Amino acid sequence: MGSSEAAMLPVKNQVLLGTFVHSKTAQELDYMHNTAVAVDSHGTIVGIERDAADVMSAKAKLLANLGWSESDVQVCVSKEGQFFFPGFIDTHVHAPQYANVGIFGKSSLLDWLEKYTFPLESSLKDLDRARMVYNACVRRTLSHGTTTAAYYATVDVAATNLLSKLCLSVGQRAFIGRVCMDRPGICLDYYKDESAEQSIKATLESIAYIKEIDPTHEIVSPILTPRFAPACTSEAMHSLSKIQRELDLPVQTHISENTDEVKLVSELFPDSKSYADVYDKHGLLTPRTILAHAVHITDDEADLIVARKSKIAHCPCSNSSLTSGEARVRWMWDKGIEVGLGTDMSGGYSPSILEAARHATLASRHLAMDIADRKERERVKLTVDEALFLATRGGAKVVGLEDKIGGFEVGKRWDAQLVGLGVVQPNGSRNGEEVAAAAHSNGAANGHPTQGGHGGDAGNVDIFGWEAWEDRVAKWVYNGDDRNTKKVWVNGRLVHSRQ
Amino acid sequence: MGSSEAAMLPVKNQVLLGTFVHSKTAQELDYMHNTAVAVDSHGTIVGIERDAADVMSAKAKLLANLGWSESDVQVCVSKEGQFFFPGFIDTHVHAPQYANVGIFGKSSLLDWLEKYTFPLESSLKDLDRARMVYNACVRRTLSHGTTTAAYYATVDVAATNLLSKLCLSVGQRAFIGRVCMDRPGICLDYYKDESAEQSIKATLESIAYIKEIDPTHEIVSPILTPRFAPACTSEAMHSLSKIQRELDLPVQTHISENTDEVKLVSELFPDSKSYADVYDKHGLLTPRTILAHAVHITDDEADLIVARKSKIAHCPCSNSSLTSGEARVRWMWDKGIEVGLGTDMSGGYSPSILEAARHATLASRHLAMDIADRKERERVKLTVDEALFLATRGGAKVVGLEDKIGGFEVGKRWDAQLVGLGVVQPNGSRNGEEVAAAAHSNGAANGHPTQGGHGGDAGNVDIFGWEAWEDRVAKWVYNGDDRNTKKVWVNGRLVHSRQ
Repeated sequence: MGSSEAAMLPVKNQVLLGTFVHSKTAQELDYMHNTAVAVDSHGTIVGIERDAADVMSAKAKLLANLGWSESDVQVCVSKEGQFFFPGFIDTHVHAPQYANVGIFGKSSLLDWLEKYTFPLESSLKDLDRARMVYNACVRRTLSHGTTTAAYYATVDVAATNLLSKLCLSVGQRAFIGRVCMDRPGICLDYYKDESAEQSIKATLESIAYIKEIDPTHEIVSPILTPRFAPACTSEAMHSLSKIQRELDLPVQTHISENTDEVKLVSELFPDSKSYADVYDKHGLLTPRTILAHAVHITDDEADLIVARKSKIAHCPCSNSSLTSGEARVRWMWDKGIEVGLGTDMSGGYSPSILEAARHATLASRHLAMDIADRKERERVKLTVDEALFLATRGGAKVVGLEDKIGGFEVGKRWDAQLVGLGVVQPNGSRNGEEVAAAAHSNGAANGHPTQGGHGGDAGNVDIFGWEAWEDRVAKWVYNGDDRNTKKVWVNGRLVHSRQ
Repeated sequence: MGSSEAAMLPVKNQVLLGTFVHSKTAQELDYMHNTAVAVDSHGTIVGIERDAADVMSAKAKLLANLGWSESDVQVCVSKEGQFFFPGFIDTHVHAPQYANVGIFGKSSLLDWLEKYTFPLESSLKDLDRARMVYNACVRRTLSHGTTTAAYYATVDVAATNLLSKLCLSVGQRAFIGRVCMDRPGICLDYYKDESAEQSIKATLESIAYIKEIDPTHEIVSPILTPRFAPACTSEAMHSLSKIQRELDLPVQTHISENTDEVKLVSELFPDSKSYADVYDKHGLLTPRTILAHAVHITDDEADLIVARKSKIAHCPCSNSSLTSGEARVRWMWDKGIEVGLGTDMSGGYSPSILEAARHATLASRHLAMDIADRKERERVKLTVDEALFLATRGGAKVVGLEDKIGGFEVGKRWDAQLVGLGVVQPNGSRNGEEVAAAAHSNGAANGHPTQGGHGGDAGNVDIFGWEAWEDRVAKWVYNGDDRNTKKVWVNGRLVHSRQ
């Protein structure tokens, strides 16, 4: 079955031409103009000619180097002002919660779980409902340029399998985690694994299914998913650790999102020194572990996480919405921890990692507001370039795919998006927009309403023409949305496009 | 000239049918279903029939009450799931800075002004450039449902007049302020009024022009605009106060946005007790004064603002972006101060008051994070209903138009928007969206990319069908954008529409 999936079939050799932007370092974007990138039939970048006199000479040189004939390749040229950017990596997202985005009221983590989240997740054992929500979620994240996502599903195996199959079908690179939550008293009776044993059995079923549909895990991989320490028995966590070692699987869980949660963990695990220590004692703090949030971790916990080479998913939109706190990304970087971004829907309301990048800069500024020392206050602020690093190469390291995705180098996969921004005409209208009389009347009386949304909506980013490339990218980060993501590729395959 | 403006010409009598949502109180939205609203040819609401058995009976009763014949009225019916909402009021926005939205780097107020803002504002003395930027700004804010805006223009009279004429032309209710900034040493030589005298002369020219094009200020009004205390001489501020009293004009300025700015004010005005006291001593703290930001005002300043009945424009997106701080809306309300929302472009990056409402809830949560007392921490958080009050009725009070706009009552003007949300189909696609094979394959292999943006892009709000109305509105607040604003009316006139 697996080998017949379109997402894994060979595509035609491709040459992409234009401007390419990706992270040179965590601090700096690299702008490659008049550049040609060659992608082979398996989706691997096999050649790059950068900074030529023009794109045609870049293309000619690249084809000659590879011995490719132009007639055998598919060519994609970015239009003036457009640019190719690495696909986004969502390192923490709950697919079933997609139906609840924006619905959280004044709640914070623990009451939010009981009031909004568990009832919705539980309801997705109805597969028609799961199909509706998961389809909408995956299509939505893809349209925002998310080429790789680390998904939490629910406890239900069949619905989790459906999500796995769906990601493979539309071609979104994904880690799929059936959620383990077996602790009585904390998990509600209507939504929990019956026992540690049953939790492990269900997890293995989900792993087997993914192995069956994508044997090499080229697109879809299983990920072990103890929900969070309070929801799991020691027995379940020890068993998951055993599976982790035997199958060398990635792990995802939550840590120190909220102070009440931290307190609960200390009460439930009185023998552990800290929240991080709970996971460490259960063998779950591995180099392949993604820890979501880490808002309130201590120095000792950070040191332990570094020692174990575990990674952190920063979810600023969620942390602001649920009043969880302001995670210290600069401090995590200082410690040497790898950090990526997560939408954390529906703790976070937005499906967009671009919006998560935006919120990462804002959350760092709220953190800065409380810092008295002027130099340190400036230092903790994240820049646009840094936020985009978190969204791409940072995320790639967090999900353990830094050799495969996150930037444009020979040997990496073509997981990318084509970004197009709106261009303002001298009369103030935008390209592709139907021009109402008002726009070119220069103030003369008229009775025609302005009109939007016709013939290709360029979105909210308005480029006036005098902006430097750095300013264009900043405009994209702050006002961009899915309308600016014109094409999305995963593994060389076009998986989403729009006008 | 004025009377020929389309924005002020009579329209046909209208009846609007469907669901209407507006603020009942600052804490609670009012949902009116199966309701009919009648708007006369001057744009005034003349009748409301609410909560009928169905819209047709609401319409019949309304027409009978008014003695209107159906053939003489234009009828607008909201589709299933759509609702009418009051137009948004942007109580603080710099039109010239629109070209810079998203461009602020790691700056904060004072260096941001010198590095990004003054060079751009100065450049708009080129009227072609001003036309391009102002057109784009007004069209953009209108498309986001902003029916009333309190604009800062620049020091340039001709460009300010152009903005006034443009707002009248497209029919956006606006307060237009030529910016007064005459203090040498603080204002840069290349961008300032030559003297206090010249500043007042230019201000009066701008006022006279607006009087000429809109004699009754039905759509466009002048507003006195001392930029902020540090940029103005005492002489200029005293003269503006004199004009204010003589012409009974509104005033807009900035207060206590940033701690360095507060320090600067105390150095420049050593005889004043506080920043607010500077304005009060110059006669500028009036019931018609809009004070932007007020992030760092003291209790005494708040008491003075209450005593003078001045109003506050809360600009959360700007305050987060420029690391200015977290304004205390609950505390302002406790004091009895009227508060509205401002986008503060380009300190704020977003043209949308809906996004400002969203950020108001988030900023209040960041404020809450630092509060130890659990009850008080919960209390300072703003709800969706409260944020939407700030965006409509709150803003109406701030600009002094609470008798005219901000809600749906007989006697008020029809300044409104029709909001439509995306509806998810059982296969996970959305209404109006081109369905790619993936969406209805239920997981079968396919090679077709998903496609967006065709045939009416419903935006990012996904309604699954089981959401309560309160949850639909919350989804709109958190993921809505201009795509959800289907129609916009000012004074009964349709001024913007989209598919």
